[in-house]
Amino acid sequence: MPELRKDPIVDRWVIVAPERARRPIQLAAEPRLEPTGPCPFCEGNERETPHEILALRAESTCADQPGWRVRVVPNKFPALAMQTSAASGSGGQFDERRDGLGIHEVIVESPRHLRTLTELSALELRDVFWVYRQRLAALADDQRLAHAVIFKNMGAAAGATVEHVHSQLIATPLVPPAVAERLAGSQRFWRECGRCVFCQLIDEALSDRERLVVESPRFVAFCPFAARFPYETWLLPRQHAAHFHTLAEGDLAELASVARRVLCALEAVLPQPAYNYAIQSAPFDSSAPDHYHWHMEIIPRVTNVGGFEWASGLFINTVPAEEAAARLRAADAKGQAFPAG
Amino acid sequence: MPELRKDPIVDRWVIVAPERARRPIQLAAEPRLEPTGPCPFCEGNERETPHEILALRAESTCADQPGWRVRVVPNKFPALAMQTSAASGSGGQFDERRDGLGIHEVIVESPRHLRTLTELSALELRDVFWVYRQRLAALADDQRLAHAVIFKNMGAAAGATVEHVHSQLIATPLVPPAVAERLAGSQRFWRECGRCVFCQLIDEALSDRERLVVESPRFVAFCPFAARFPYETWLLPRQHAAHFHTLAEGDLAELASVARRVLCALEAVLPQPAYNYAIQSAPFDSSAPDHYHWHMEIIPRVTNVGGFEWASGLFINTVPAEEAAARLRAADAKGQAFPAG
Repeated sequence: MPELRKDPIVDRWVIVAPERARRPIQLAAEPRLEPTGPCPFCEGNERETPHEILALRAESTCADQPGWRVRVVPNKFPALAMQTSAASGSGGQFDERRDGLGIHEVIVESPRHLRTLTELSALELRDVFWVYRQRLAALADDQRLAHAVIFKNMGAAAGATVEHVHSQLIATPLVPPAVAERLAGSQRFWRECGRCVFCQLIDEALSDRERLVVESPRFVAFCPFAARFPYETWLLPRQHAAHFHTLAEGDLAELASVARRVLCALEAVLPQPAYNYAIQSAPFDSSAPDHYHWHMEIIPRVTNVGGFEWASGLFINTVPAEEAAARLRAADAKGQAFPAG
Repeated sequence: MPELRKDPIVDRWVIVAPERARRPIQLAAEPRLEPTGPCPFCEGNERETPHEILALRAESTCADQPGWRVRVVPNKFPALAMQTSAASGSGGQFDERRDGLGIHEVIVESPRHLRTLTELSALELRDVFWVYRQRLAALADDQRLAHAVIFKNMGAAAGATVEHVHSQLIATPLVPPAVAERLAGSQRFWRECGRCVFCQLIDEALSDRERLVVESPRFVAFCPFAARFPYETWLLPRQHAAHFHTLAEGDLAELASVARRVLCALEAVLPQPAYNYAIQSAPFDSSAPDHYHWHMEIIPRVTNVGGFEWASGLFINTVPAEEAAARLRAADAKGQAFPAG
């Protein structure tokens, strides 16, 4: 029997329909990325990218040269850019447009040509999160920018166009609509219930444990009650904080370890999953420290979103959060008992 | 230079970044649907589906037998269903859930195993729209239902799991979030400007002609100013109407002809495009006849939506609407001058 579930933060219902998972899918293999030339992100090919913005590199090595562990470069084909020009072109009376001012960077997560983040050691993954934090902290001071998202597209079905392990950062001059919606929702909850809705969700996940995936002293990962996608998982700090970039340096290794366990569990349950993740941090102006809580959303792309979802905004999830979490927990327990490598 | 454009109906900005279309995409061919057994939608295989709800069929042929032109059946793996049960299962204090009451039907658009709607003649396509109208009119009277979407998933990248040409109908007990958002937006425009925003958009499309794709005496198709997707096209009746199912029977052939021209133009510009379309009609209770205008949204799935779009709600479109419309117009002109077949 299908069920409708309502997200506690934004005004969004989700259809949970496990029966639909039984339908035969006439699908060929997942499309694979096929490199068309030398990989622009491999060590030794630094000249294939614009000049680096930041790199974690061995002492006595130079910018745009080998010797780095994580490297940040401007996106060669940016969605937004910092130079401005008077917006031009004709438009109707009601057409509103402005310059696409902003930042679009690529974070190359390894000098080696790896496909997935789980091939990085926990220590290497800590470096990746260190760089995320560094870039968000640096951009937070730019008065022209309102918000930034760090995100990963893993696999062609998740929007990736380059195979080499990397994530991206896009900073915008306005608070994006989905972020504004979550802020409004968490503010409403704060007004009505007197606390942060994310803190509430963490407490629930830890007390009923049905949707819990991984817990550590300072972090929790769980499948949200009204997940839009099968195996959608959220990772949050237990201690309330609106901004990712205020995370203590000493917590980065633990965050990397929890994220790695979640991604390993996903890869154990879904072979070669395409997925997206995004770090959802509050807008830079931080008018929302009390009611907004940064979190990392991990969205496996098991099925393609179709016309119904685009038209209605209603998502159909074939794997209830409790079932997804149980499978991920089991995979994690197995991984912890018999660690690979 | 990228540009931000705001949708005139809902509170949504889109990033228009033509430079990003230049990036090399390491992509293999589009995944193809590979039938795993006899096609459940082909004439002669009627027993593979649940009993038919409606069919346009030759006189003296029986239900669930050959002889039909368009056939409507319940979805065998429904996202929603009409039987109810007390919603059960534990949940947190704030978890809101209800029965997944609703309707999920499949509209098989041809007895032949065709892959794309443009293989149907204009007359056959008219029958398809006749059936859409018939089903929406029938469901509009059911007090348990608030709204219905008719949609098509064409190609695996657009969410299709069966190759045989078909569309689907999902009726819900609540007004879906994206529909509610558009209603609120068009109501706001009505209050501020004293007219229907869609009528306004039609006038603009016809006067500046930059984004016009196809026009006929009673219908207009254009690429919207703040299109989220490359080649996104909207098709609307020139005469204001909130509900698709109030369309006059005499207008169906003209609608089919315009829709066919748009789809043929798309297929000429994008080889074997995956796409979604949806008929966006007002909620059944029709409290919104003045400010809402039914329309058909056609969304080619050229690129996969990535983590940034999911996290931010901001879409990145690499083909400005004016450029998309110019290419579609040129393809349509060629198609009209030298009709195939």
